[in-house]
Amino acid sequence: MDEPLIGDVFGEMIRDAYAVRTGRGPRPLAGGRVPRPVIEVIERDDGLINGALADHYLDEPAEWQPHDHRALRLCRGHVLDIGVGAGRTAIEIQRRGMAVTGLDTSRGAIEVARRRGLRDTVLNTIDAYAVAGARYDTFLLLGNNLGLLESRQRAPIFLDALARLANPGARIIAQGTDPYGTTDPVHVSYHRRNRERGRLGGQLRLRLRYRMLATEWFDYLNCSIEELSALLTGTRWRLKSIDDEDRPYYLAVMELIS
Amino acid sequence: MDEPLIGDVFGEMIRDAYAVRTGRGPRPLAGGRVPRPVIEVIERDDGLINGALADHYLDEPAEWQPHDHRALRLCRGHVLDIGVGAGRTAIEIQRRGMAVTGLDTSRGAIEVARRRGLRDTVLNTIDAYAVAGARYDTFLLLGNNLGLLESRQRAPIFLDALARLANPGARIIAQGTDPYGTTDPVHVSYHRRNRERGRLGGQLRLRLRYRMLATEWFDYLNCSIEELSALLTGTRWRLKSIDDEDRPYYLAVMELIS
Repeated sequence: MDEPLIGDVFGEMIRDAYAVRTGRGPRPLAGGRVPRPVIEVIERDDGLINGALADHYLDEPAEWQPHDHRALRLCRGHVLDIGVGAGRTAIEIQRRGMAVTGLDTSRGAIEVARRRGLRDTVLNTIDAYAVAGARYDTFLLLGNNLGLLESRQRAPIFLDALARLANPGARIIAQGTDPYGTTDPVHVSYHRRNRERGRLGGQLRLRLRYRMLATEWFDYLNCSIEELSALLTGTRWRLKSIDDEDRPYYLAVMELIS
Repeated sequence: MDEPLIGDVFGEMIRDAYAVRTGRGPRPLAGGRVPRPVIEVIERDDGLINGALADHYLDEPAEWQPHDHRALRLCRGHVLDIGVGAGRTAIEIQRRGMAVTGLDTSRGAIEVARRRGLRDTVLNTIDAYAVAGARYDTFLLLGNNLGLLESRQRAPIFLDALARLANPGARIIAQGTDPYGTTDPVHVSYHRRNRERGRLGGQLRLRLRYRMLATEWFDYLNCSIEELSALLTGTRWRLKSIDDEDRPYYLAVMELIS
């Protein structure tokens, strides 16, 4: 059986999801005729596979989770939306007259965000962009993008890149998920297996697939608030507040230590 | 990365889809709390992967495709519903007072069909069941189950098993898909690649995955009406009529040669 090709999974998927939502442009058809919902396939390194509807990446504010609205009220100054995707939140921030830059590593996602009207975009990794001299007041990590902390090894490097991009008084507003409320034996065993391997329990090892494409395998972190606090130790960021009204999801606000 | 386990993919998936639809029983949750739609993941041997919502396997008659209703009007005598799944069509046939038996190789699917009220079920392969001495007047292959013909090699064996289960004057009512109307380069190349390997263009090589489970790789045939005619040559069945009103889908009625 052929291995999938490595490519811009997220971009291809978002392009198709946008075509399906708007009814414009070529889109995948079932039986060559019937439009099918665009589905993101997520493989985990223990063999688990899940599909999830991709359309939510394009949700208008009326369709958002309540914590996304609360996150936007915490933004101030120039916002860097990290993992901006199709611009779901950045476009709304721009509409409100705030300065916002959308950063993503997916060329296809950036293209869709621009087509939807997002003006200021950066196609880059956070590491490479951190040396470019730009400065921000708010770093936004929504859509579970606190997961970009990845691991105990990666988190301080990622947080240091943000510190280098930070104006004095800057904050990170990040949405995370506490994975430990589950009783599903598939997940409980996975958390244990991770710990046995010296990883954080919710340190997911994933790859995304869409049609003919796959990403490389990468880490994506679901962590508890306690674990997040520990990851901040020794970095230039401290935990300012937690909003866990929509448990297991939470919003963490971190501020730059002056 | 761990290989998935081989198991009753379809059964596990249908059990979860039934739990989600009815709101009863344990079901997979996102973040340990939020019910997620159940999605069937289909891998093809060229690296293509697709997700499809599984809920349609439980559709009530009001939600069916028009050709499913037309298929049921063609049933007569004792019906064997092959690949009965969760009993979508068999339960409606039973409700109409007709004799119907549902056959499937998935233990989980049969359990859901019985829980939904289907009385006469067989957990078996068609090959093993063909020696059991039962006789039917109609063989129903809906939900694209004409695909169970698989290949040039398998089709005559499958059709012979049905002939051994057939009363005089029996018919097969099968829903198929003509795959050749597509212009999607991914599918056009796949059809060519199949032909280069001596396979029928739409002879899909697939495996299904759901959560921790996978099936073995198997063939599933999307064929044109011309290809179907050719596959019937030399068997005990002849093509009686085609209903292609819902192209690319079609209903083929085949009758036993007396």
